[in-house]
Amino acid sequence: MSLITAVEVVDVRFPTSLTMDGSDAMNKDGDYSAAYVILRTDEPGLNGYGFTFTIGRGNDICVLAAQQRALPLIGRDVAEIVGDIGGLYRELKSDSQLRWLGPEKGVEHLAMAAVMNAVWDLAARRAGKPLWRLLVDMTSEELVDVADLTYLSDALTRDEAIALLEQLVPTRSDRIAELAETGYPCYTTSAGWLGYSDDKLRRLCQEAVDAGYKHIKLKVGANRSDDIRRLGIAREVIGYDTNLMIDANQVWDVPEAIEWVSALAEFKPLWIEEPTSPDDVLGHAAVRKAVAPIGVATGEHGMNRVLFKQMFQAEAIDYCQLDAARLASINEILAVFLMAKKFGVPVCPHAGGVGLCELVQHLSIVDYVAVSGTLENRVTEYVDHLHEHFVDPCVVENGAYVLPTQPGYSAEMLESTLEEFGFPDGTYWAASRADVVASLG
Amino acid sequence: MSLITAVEVVDVRFPTSLTMDGSDAMNKDGDYSAAYVILRTDEPGLNGYGFTFTIGRGNDICVLAAQQRALPLIGRDVAEIVGDIGGLYRELKSDSQLRWLGPEKGVEHLAMAAVMNAVWDLAARRAGKPLWRLLVDMTSEELVDVADLTYLSDALTRDEAIALLEQLVPTRSDRIAELAETGYPCYTTSAGWLGYSDDKLRRLCQEAVDAGYKHIKLKVGANRSDDIRRLGIAREVIGYDTNLMIDANQVWDVPEAIEWVSALAEFKPLWIEEPTSPDDVLGHAAVRKAVAPIGVATGEHGMNRVLFKQMFQAEAIDYCQLDAARLASINEILAVFLMAKKFGVPVCPHAGGVGLCELVQHLSIVDYVAVSGTLENRVTEYVDHLHEHFVDPCVVENGAYVLPTQPGYSAEMLESTLEEFGFPDGTYWAASRADVVASLG
Repeated sequence: MSLITAVEVVDVRFPTSLTMDGSDAMNKDGDYSAAYVILRTDEPGLNGYGFTFTIGRGNDICVLAAQQRALPLIGRDVAEIVGDIGGLYRELKSDSQLRWLGPEKGVEHLAMAAVMNAVWDLAARRAGKPLWRLLVDMTSEELVDVADLTYLSDALTRDEAIALLEQLVPTRSDRIAELAETGYPCYTTSAGWLGYSDDKLRRLCQEAVDAGYKHIKLKVGANRSDDIRRLGIAREVIGYDTNLMIDANQVWDVPEAIEWVSALAEFKPLWIEEPTSPDDVLGHAAVRKAVAPIGVATGEHGMNRVLFKQMFQAEAIDYCQLDAARLASINEILAVFLMAKKFGVPVCPHAGGVGLCELVQHLSIVDYVAVSGTLENRVTEYVDHLHEHFVDPCVVENGAYVLPTQPGYSAEMLESTLEEFGFPDGTYWAASRADVVASLG
Repeated sequence: MSLITAVEVVDVRFPTSLTMDGSDAMNKDGDYSAAYVILRTDEPGLNGYGFTFTIGRGNDICVLAAQQRALPLIGRDVAEIVGDIGGLYRELKSDSQLRWLGPEKGVEHLAMAAVMNAVWDLAARRAGKPLWRLLVDMTSEELVDVADLTYLSDALTRDEAIALLEQLVPTRSDRIAELAETGYPCYTTSAGWLGYSDDKLRRLCQEAVDAGYKHIKLKVGANRSDDIRRLGIAREVIGYDTNLMIDANQVWDVPEAIEWVSALAEFKPLWIEEPTSPDDVLGHAAVRKAVAPIGVATGEHGMNRVLFKQMFQAEAIDYCQLDAARLASINEILAVFLMAKKFGVPVCPHAGGVGLCELVQHLSIVDYVAVSGTLENRVTEYVDHLHEHFVDPCVVENGAYVLPTQPGYSAEMLESTLEEFGFPDGTYWAASRADVVASLG
């Protein structure tokens, strides 16, 4: 019997604000960060790694929340935990005192994601499988048992969920074989951050097309004439055979979103992402109705499955961009996959940040193989940043994620990264403070 | 010129789980707590006090978040800050790195509430007025300038908001005079906590009627036959001239809520409170349609103004129960008051907990005097717990809050309370740990 002997949560921060990587109309100076959870066991070589993603300040708050949320794991039997992850998830989320701080949203939910991501990583490592394989090897009942269907029965019952999955069981292996050939299609956001110059934008658009991407995304929403100029440059470079998406990062009220997006319609964007508050189901529905055929996409700030349920019920979105570190891990993401299947909405997960690409490749494989059964209108985000910090980084070839093969959820960071970018005492941050002190004389 | 010289945030926890005060179907063992903010100034006798409310574990997370959120206040000119609270609110909430952790929900939003509540307390103390008076002395434009209307313009524009307020300006003084006579009507939840015995329930219902309450609320949702028995006891004691409300604290899915509430319809509850997830706008709308004429109430977990906007737009609720420590202070609450006025939904604020009654009395006065202009279907929660810890506790007479007269937001706690119930080093908690150690031999 092996036991979980310790939980460590590390505050890891990268100084991305220095290069304007990740800059958009709402987030001008993010330092990409992770509240990084390590579940240590007494079985040699067996640990679980997981994280949630933040953009700097407040990462320590998530660290504290993850430490507290993970407390019940210490001393527990690994076999018992990985044998009933649905039960563990319900146990951790049912802490009624912590529930008050959400429920199921904000810091506490980010922390729950970090902890449960590590549990899933542990389960996959113990099984000797990449996470996607662990999941697609489960029966329909097993998948539905780990999915959190609480508050969803008006949209999807347990029986419906099982029936949806059962349809696709006979053909799962075909889709695995297909993905092993082609990979899962992705698009790049690396080209279009708002802080980049026109020349850099032009160059990166060309590089993206050359690298085989069929979808390219640009940030918009800070200045309308800048948007028109930048979209013009992008279309000039990529033409109209490559899809162009735009992302406003929540800067508009609903009427403003409709007006601004309409002014960009000539560039034929495939979707407008985050046109307004991520909480505004009815607002997204109004925008969608007004800007069609431009699609509406949102989800990276989608706080929980209850929000997504309503997005589907209200026909508010064309693309569901759930986030692997904001939803409370596979347990909640499976529920959203199942609802998306029922309501016919493609899931195109959010990625980028720190390690989100490493996670979402597993998710999109599971979605295709076990839940959606189609690649139509599906494309998963990819951003070429910070992969060098991961032990098993994702690999993108010809605009597609290559299937991960190593056991786990690809979430483990390098020891050297923790030593350098641990906050505030990692070597990078210590040196940075020393520089400030020196500059003050 | 006086400056803010320091921000202290104290973790205060009361061991309410020992007596089952506050027990309901979701929250079985809360230790009522506050992340308590003190803004110290260099003007003798002038500080600002505010807090957010939690039910125990995780209060330290809110403390940390409030400390960080309040950092920009240190060293600032008090006159400048209280002269433009709308500007300060926008400044604090625009921290894009912290925004990622919400946005505007969960721990970060609770912390924002704690900090801004203290700023409003400071402003009222500096003006030498109770907070309600500070607000009703403001012009319509001044009130709208401090209200956060972001993401709301599809439901309420600035011009509409001003027009709504202007209608009532000529009669504000009449309503102040009326409230000075009668107080603001309240109801009690003290009778109906789930952990109380039938005898205690019967006795407390009688006491509530004797004390002049016209509304009494019971917790439901743990066990249907218990609910039927307890509602029977309550109706036996209070009859049908007193209103009876029921509160499920989010334990049901939507179909279950409809079925369960229908089974309690014979007791003619005025409203069912929190029938399902607090995030589920469309779910509340479905429940409301199905259980009419029983009203639907929610809001104590209503995370922000965007949620309330949708509750109004979808005609999802009959009563809006906003929370003074979950919404980001007056700035956001005024926006919800204004929308509620436009959509014709009465606001019946949530209270209880630690000090929420002290806050909401001010809010309800402002709502009546400046925004709603009516008391019809309005009643504000009152729970008779923990008032002894406040310097200026609320006073309830004949089922109504008596108008507060001391300067401030009534949020200041006694020094002796902080010494006793500060966590983990206050005298109560230190002794409690010593008892545990002793019992272990």
